[in-house]
Amino acid sequence: MISVNEALKIVKENTFIPSISEVPLLESMGKILAENIVADRDFPPFDRVAMDGIAIKKSNQIIFEIEKTQYAGEPQKTLQNPKNCVEVMTGAVLPLGCDTVIRYEDVDIQDKEGTKYAKISIPFSEIKSGQNIHPKGSDRKQGDILLQKGLKISPAEIAVMASVGKDRVLIETPPRVAVISTGDELVEITTNPKPYQIRMSNSYMLAGALAQIGIKANLYHLTDDKELLFNKLQEILLNHDILLLSGGVSAGKKDFVPEILNNLGVKKLFHKVAQKPGKPFWFGKSEEGKTVFALPGNPVSTFLCFCKYFLPQKEEQVILDKTIFFKPDLTYFVPAKTYFQDGQMMATPFEGSGSADFANLTDCDGFVELPADSQEFKSGISFEFVRFRG
Amino acid sequence: MISVNEALKIVKENTFIPSISEVPLLESMGKILAENIVADRDFPPFDRVAMDGIAIKKSNQIIFEIEKTQYAGEPQKTLQNPKNCVEVMTGAVLPLGCDTVIRYEDVDIQDKEGTKYAKISIPFSEIKSGQNIHPKGSDRKQGDILLQKGLKISPAEIAVMASVGKDRVLIETPPRVAVISTGDELVEITTNPKPYQIRMSNSYMLAGALAQIGIKANLYHLTDDKELLFNKLQEILLNHDILLLSGGVSAGKKDFVPEILNNLGVKKLFHKVAQKPGKPFWFGKSEEGKTVFALPGNPVSTFLCFCKYFLPQKEEQVILDKTIFFKPDLTYFVPAKTYFQDGQMMATPFEGSGSADFANLTDCDGFVELPADSQEFKSGISFEFVRFRG
Repeated sequence: MISVNEALKIVKENTFIPSISEVPLLESMGKILAENIVADRDFPPFDRVAMDGIAIKKSNQIIFEIEKTQYAGEPQKTLQNPKNCVEVMTGAVLPLGCDTVIRYEDVDIQDKEGTKYAKISIPFSEIKSGQNIHPKGSDRKQGDILLQKGLKISPAEIAVMASVGKDRVLIETPPRVAVISTGDELVEITTNPKPYQIRMSNSYMLAGALAQIGIKANLYHLTDDKELLFNKLQEILLNHDILLLSGGVSAGKKDFVPEILNNLGVKKLFHKVAQKPGKPFWFGKSEEGKTVFALPGNPVSTFLCFCKYFLPQKEEQVILDKTIFFKPDLTYFVPAKTYFQDGQMMATPFEGSGSADFANLTDCDGFVELPADSQEFKSGISFEFVRFRG
Repeated sequence: MISVNEALKIVKENTFIPSISEVPLLESMGKILAENIVADRDFPPFDRVAMDGIAIKKSNQIIFEIEKTQYAGEPQKTLQNPKNCVEVMTGAVLPLGCDTVIRYEDVDIQDKEGTKYAKISIPFSEIKSGQNIHPKGSDRKQGDILLQKGLKISPAEIAVMASVGKDRVLIETPPRVAVISTGDELVEITTNPKPYQIRMSNSYMLAGALAQIGIKANLYHLTDDKELLFNKLQEILLNHDILLLSGGVSAGKKDFVPEILNNLGVKKLFHKVAQKPGKPFWFGKSEEGKTVFALPGNPVSTFLCFCKYFLPQKEEQVILDKTIFFKPDLTYFVPAKTYFQDGQMMATPFEGSGSADFANLTDCDGFVELPADSQEFKSGISFEFVRFRG
């Protein structure tokens, strides 16, 4: 049985390799950027006025005749007389001949016989040469790589791409994912279950989680029948890049999934991971590079394996607020609720009644990962955290 | 000028009140639940076998004849002879007459002249009465409220709703949001800007951020023309619940937005907040309860105001890894990148070149909120954090 870290390494080394697509800018939200984004101009592209007010050529002068106004969106104007000033608006080009901007709050505008004057109303010493100007190229230079291929696109990246005119963007095509539940005890959610049946919930949970990362999955349910499993999985494999199965991978007499996958040419890369929950997790890859995550069927196991091995995880640490004992030589993932205390992220573990107690998850944000090499996990110590709720 | 906390309070007290819609289960992902979800059965609904193995009536016996098999999805069977056992599969109903499950790993199955026997292969003392059974109703009882109205729906809630047969769910209808940029210097992203123009990026940034929370916004750009602003905003107000404007709210001579909104019957609730960036932020509400966020036009200001006042924020704290000085009597929001160190969330501030330096945001996760009542913010001290990247 391999360790959690070995399993994770194998999964990462065998990730499905996506194709590249071009999509309209806004459709790239949340996707992986597949090209470098380069500045087509300086950022900002001109010496940009950063406050509404007046632009001057700084000297010792404190009263200026207003020569003209420079609005945002107008071609650059010129200050004809260096003893005058130009009224300037935020976002405008700094007029030629000016080097300093004084905001309206720090000047008095007076009208004398039809001519307007601006008088500085604060101590002259408080005015710094060059102030309130956002200099051309001070943020980024033309030709700079603004965004690196491979990053996840968030609103800030959308803004940067808009500013360089990327109305269409290359992204990694989201994989075609099939979510397949197995198990004869499961019935459709619209059904009234018999006393020994339960409604399926895993496939909906996974579909919901996939929707969060912009993947619309196809949902299937298959009963524990070898021939049916073989035929249906063959068909599903043909039309998808990644399969997420739940159930049928443990020691039960109807746990046919590993055998069937093998018969379909999906090579087992591991079966069983030294973890609780989710020990029976099976992972494999087809010759075409399609990956199959055959997850254990208990809902908490399914979800833990999905979050830990399928979802891209950001490194996060939490401090246990309660001591936990766990004897077996397994990595123990405990559902927990996080909160902040004096700048530290604390976690209250909810051990609940184990891997089938998914109602427990609605009170939690993620799983605290307690390593296999210890049996006592003390309150006040920090551990890795697998978050499932933002 | 009001404080950040006062502004936030006013925004919260004047939130647009959404209508309620019924949607298919999976479409409720990320939305706000508008009904309580009640358990229609116990969780689990029967004494559920939690491991593949054998079910026995516990005594001192260690060898059992296998009487039958109980699969998942089958009606409950009965152990006829308490000296026998039943092979049981995970997810099955515990057979009547049994009280303990021993997993396959802890028994040897032997075949003697056509009759199969299971012999316990571990010390008898290690077997606890009632083990490996997930008792009926141990997680939740029929009639329990599983999910409270008002929570945000994540995959765990989807699973719970599926399990109680909610194929359609009541949610708060996402508001109809219009994103409107203003400013004569802005051109469409497909345009090659003149030297004094820039491409619009704010509206794309906001639309991207709204998409993340499941809102598809309509995008508009309006030039700084009073009549046009009046007519277009009137029309937009008619067809939307929330307006997010950017630009035109400061002291400039073409900053017409507050005046026009007033003329359209949108009552100002505040204008200007003691914060940097985003001081000129204007917020108001129409008689019909529609809200208007008129955000300052500098991209970092726009985004900060959107994240702080519009997006639902989870409380988060970070520890500065660098001392920052900031004199003005304003709350200072500094873009920062977070990372974990010994279980603490640290933040490296990137002051950059201010409120127009949005390229800076691509290196950051959020804003550290440095309160107005101090001028020195020491490395090692914790502050609130406004996250914009998950």
